[in-house]
Amino acid sequence: MPPPRSPLAPGRFPDVPVIAGVRMAACAAGLRYRGRPDLALFELAEGTTAAGLLTRSSVPGHPVAWCRRILARGRARGLVVNAGNANVLGGEAGDAAVRAEAETVAGLFGAEREDVFVASTGVIGEPLPVARITAALPDLHGALAAAAWPEAAAAICTTDTFPKGAFARAAIGDAEVTIAGIAKGSGMIQPDMATMLAFLFTDATLPHAVLQTLLEAACARSFHAITVDSDTSTSDTLLLFATGQARHPVPRGPDDPLLEGFRRGLEQVARDLALQVVRDGEGAAKLIAITVTGATDDGSARRIGLAIANSPLVKTAIAGEDANWGRIAMAVGKAGEPVDLAQLAISFGGHAVAQGGARVPDLDEAPVAAHLKGREIAIEVMVGRGPGAATVWTCDLTHGYIAINAAYRS
Amino acid sequence: MPPPRSPLAPGRFPDVPVIAGVRMAACAAGLRYRGRPDLALFELAEGTTAAGLLTRSSVPGHPVAWCRRILARGRARGLVVNAGNANVLGGEAGDAAVRAEAETVAGLFGAEREDVFVASTGVIGEPLPVARITAALPDLHGALAAAAWPEAAAAICTTDTFPKGAFARAAIGDAEVTIAGIAKGSGMIQPDMATMLAFLFTDATLPHAVLQTLLEAACARSFHAITVDSDTSTSDTLLLFATGQARHPVPRGPDDPLLEGFRRGLEQVARDLALQVVRDGEGAAKLIAITVTGATDDGSARRIGLAIANSPLVKTAIAGEDANWGRIAMAVGKAGEPVDLAQLAISFGGHAVAQGGARVPDLDEAPVAAHLKGREIAIEVMVGRGPGAATVWTCDLTHGYIAINAAYRS
Repeated sequence: MPPPRSPLAPGRFPDVPVIAGVRMAACAAGLRYRGRPDLALFELAEGTTAAGLLTRSSVPGHPVAWCRRILARGRARGLVVNAGNANVLGGEAGDAAVRAEAETVAGLFGAEREDVFVASTGVIGEPLPVARITAALPDLHGALAAAAWPEAAAAICTTDTFPKGAFARAAIGDAEVTIAGIAKGSGMIQPDMATMLAFLFTDATLPHAVLQTLLEAACARSFHAITVDSDTSTSDTLLLFATGQARHPVPRGPDDPLLEGFRRGLEQVARDLALQVVRDGEGAAKLIAITVTGATDDGSARRIGLAIANSPLVKTAIAGEDANWGRIAMAVGKAGEPVDLAQLAISFGGHAVAQGGARVPDLDEAPVAAHLKGREIAIEVMVGRGPGAATVWTCDLTHGYIAINAAYRS
Repeated sequence: MPPPRSPLAPGRFPDVPVIAGVRMAACAAGLRYRGRPDLALFELAEGTTAAGLLTRSSVPGHPVAWCRRILARGRARGLVVNAGNANVLGGEAGDAAVRAEAETVAGLFGAEREDVFVASTGVIGEPLPVARITAALPDLHGALAAAAWPEAAAAICTTDTFPKGAFARAAIGDAEVTIAGIAKGSGMIQPDMATMLAFLFTDATLPHAVLQTLLEAACARSFHAITVDSDTSTSDTLLLFATGQARHPVPRGPDDPLLEGFRRGLEQVARDLALQVVRDGEGAAKLIAITVTGATDDGSARRIGLAIANSPLVKTAIAGEDANWGRIAMAVGKAGEPVDLAQLAISFGGHAVAQGGARVPDLDEAPVAAHLKGREIAIEVMVGRGPGAATVWTCDLTHGYIAINAAYRS
């Protein structure tokens, strides 16, 4: 029985438009789940450039090792993604499975094996039934279509309760380009990387090095600023492909003012997808935005924010709709970052509960309690040491998380 | 309604013996809880030396700041501990409350204010009703007794489901000395420090500097090797008092072979109490011992062990009695420590599930499943890089943790 759709889910899958140079298809290859799609194939036009960020885990999956190697070439013709089995710790057979996938796709597309990216998500440590994937690929090739985003987004899900998609449009000079993406969560989510799998596509014409710099910048305030449970996946993969189908002036580098709109659009899509991952955190009932100001620098603010976001005691307090600012102060303390206790201030939804390092005198908890009953919770912390600021996002920790993870082998 | 006693609790409170030079009493001062003891007073003989370890939080409680200051003097005459209110972020009133407690006890004992240690545990950020404490102290002074360990251990509890005590005897030369201690948990437990409050007492005659070195050594494989939920308290306090009532040869320093037995006894008491804290982790149903070998050094092994111990996905898998070694591999990876993937091996209770970086072929999960149905779970991980080894302890993550922390303001 699939889990019910997250109460934080958006109303519907967005109308993600066609990206010139991208076609896709999805099917049920029977890798683990019965009767649901678990395999997606993407075809990318000749000339497509690629950028990516991969898990920092020292136990990376076999597809991650493959992507890391071919990313250096900076180009792509295909992407194959499966759910249900992460192909991690499979020994030599794990590497062979990745090569078989890439080779099969390369044969279908008339491309080189090293132009095909591979990603897998699901159970760790079980052999990947790769023959089911390679057998399904020819039919998928025949079914490629221009905008099968909902189908592709659904095929990469594991415990996700809704498929995740987003898009934005941006101008580069006189040309309009489009940025689209899909992602999946929804446990084992901790920067860096934050999401298990996210794939972004644009028709812009941008060289690999520029694309890589833009992608890393877009992550700082999106995928690197979210956490669900502090666990880092073996398989975190974020890829950005630029098909080069749009005709626009060539930027001189990633900082070219020509790219201002594209940078904003890319960050918008990345943040949209990252927040959808948090909204689908396992068992999530509330989306929590934590804004830290007054830190010595932005990095310090981010570390304090993540300490709060990862604290089980903070997350359970929010689940219980308890304005327990003492637990937030505890989490600030455990971050080990510079704090001026005499200036520490904490608010919920703009309502101050602590100021000057102590509880607000005669605190009226009613407006705070009302805020905490909502679906979207804002926590503001000021630590009084400098200009550093950051916002991170997480979800609450509920019985749902336990129920999912004490039962599901993922 | 108090939570039911942890299923991992020991059968009964041990028969902790009298320590010459230590008297104690406890009472219900009505600080937060109704009708249960929440205040304990300890009297220490003249000449008592003191050692301690305090939270590394950058938001320490007012009692922690006080203890840190007076520990430098190295001596003690009294200790007062309350539960129900942690006296953290109380502003100037928070410091004044600590001084008032110390002054009142000093007056009763005819001691200096700076010879009186103070510890508080409970809710953070609410004003401490210190007048109730100072008013109760004279009666407590009149009730001091030699071995009221169960009463004192009960008075320092918050969400603990059982009082925690331990003792050991050791020889120093021809003399027998005794080491006794009490502790409380049971959420917000993460090294360093691991326990919120633990107080150890011995009749040995040891100077402050020796005592401090011995205490720090005893912590490495006890209080610093446990975690419940990765949260570090504002109030973590571990104190060791030596009353100097036993007559034995004077050791030349902490490494004197004369102290071999004492070192062992101290570590035994510290580990006994630390494991009781884990056994009483909020919602705990299983005690998990994680042994990491093959790390580059012991510190690396400990960091890998703690990454496993703090992983919500590992802890929920154990709660679900699922031999999900993939999640353990994930946690190894997120630690970021050197690992030889080709040698990675993982066992449960001595039954290998992964060897040589992949699943054991034709794995028989039956003996593993039987082990996971027990109350005490052993996870062994070999990372194939060197001689480093460490054991850390934690508990599983269950609905009980959520139920306690989404409801209780601690």
